[in-house]
Amino acid sequence: MTLTLHLAPGTISMCVHAALEETGLPYELAWVDFKTSAQRQAPYLAVNPKGRVPSLVVDGTVLTEAPALMDWIAAATGHLMPDDPLTAARVRETMCYLSSTAHVAHAHKFRAQRWADDPAAQAAMAAKVAKNMTECAYYLEQRLTGNWVVDDFSAADLYLWNVTRWMPGDGVEMADVPKLAAHHDRVAARPAVARVIELHTGG
Amino acid sequence: MTLTLHLAPGTISMCVHAALEETGLPYELAWVDFKTSAQRQAPYLAVNPKGRVPSLVVDGTVLTEAPALMDWIAAATGHLMPDDPLTAARVRETMCYLSSTAHVAHAHKFRAQRWADDPAAQAAMAAKVAKNMTECAYYLEQRLTGNWVVDDFSAADLYLWNVTRWMPGDGVEMADVPKLAAHHDRVAARPAVARVIELHTGG
Repeated sequence: MTLTLHLAPGTISMCVHAALEETGLPYELAWVDFKTSAQRQAPYLAVNPKGRVPSLVVDGTVLTEAPALMDWIAAATGHLMPDDPLTAARVRETMCYLSSTAHVAHAHKFRAQRWADDPAAQAAMAAKVAKNMTECAYYLEQRLTGNWVVDDFSAADLYLWNVTRWMPGDGVEMADVPKLAAHHDRVAARPAVARVIELHTGG
Repeated sequence: MTLTLHLAPGTISMCVHAALEETGLPYELAWVDFKTSAQRQAPYLAVNPKGRVPSLVVDGTVLTEAPALMDWIAAATGHLMPDDPLTAARVRETMCYLSSTAHVAHAHKFRAQRWADDPAAQAAMAAKVAKNMTECAYYLEQRLTGNWVVDDFSAADLYLWNVTRWMPGDGVEMADVPKLAAHHDRVAARPAVARVIELHTGG
């Protein structure tokens, strides 16, 4: 099996990268240069016409959407997704919330042009990001009752770590969400995750 | 097993309702009255502190986020999710895209206050909904190559039908996306789905 992950530093592709690294699947990386808007140019659009990362190419088949990639990696390896359907639903619920609510809230800071053309409207959206991300952080804080999202380490922990990384920059006071902050540090300290962080941040 | 689906007419909870009806699971309905903002009042917030629908209560355990509920229903019944991991990834990819991109684009019409407090900014967001939903429709149109999202009818078809229902109201010219329009009608004609439509629209 040949796997290629198309990704960009610091984006939501980090958690998929970390899942590959955690599970020991062999893979290659294809970095997409956001500085030159490569995600919106023909070579990458031929991979993913949505112009977003991550994309995971599995033996020539392109898969997209981070929660779906996490599930595929889990199915391919038998790791990161619990067997019990109710517990698996909690893992997927967390990833879906992070994807469709928290990530979307975050995106209104630097990607507000997606949803309105008027610069004043974009500024108004950016102005509300801290409030919305803080609401997300409070919700996630009250859901965390142990070391991980569910009893065992799972794909949801990697996804949560990825989104939590953005929170200080989005104006969330991490001191107000101590369980979430500790969860972030716990995931970041895992050797596989630390290797991924180094590649995305230059050490 | 006791199942209660908390839902509101015409919302994304429709596809979860349709999945329950398609698979033959016994369930009860708990309608949430959006006209009185019941989704933001204490009785419902005790079920789902996010104040959104759907929520599915499984023997007292509350599960949320529509794509996760679809996956749970599939696991509980052996229907609506293919066994092959790559094909299942395509089903989940479609649901995640619909949830985090298309549904979010749609929500900027009537829920723009989530992302900016300024009424002028909200109006600017609403003004871009037709363009964004049309982009989503074109992407989905080029993905459809057969009767269903993947070879067999799946959870992704119900999710896609639910979001496509919103498109005419969002300004999408359905004549420009004939495969998507035909897919919508094909799903809507299924007896289980027709029963759900009748309950949500009053016939």
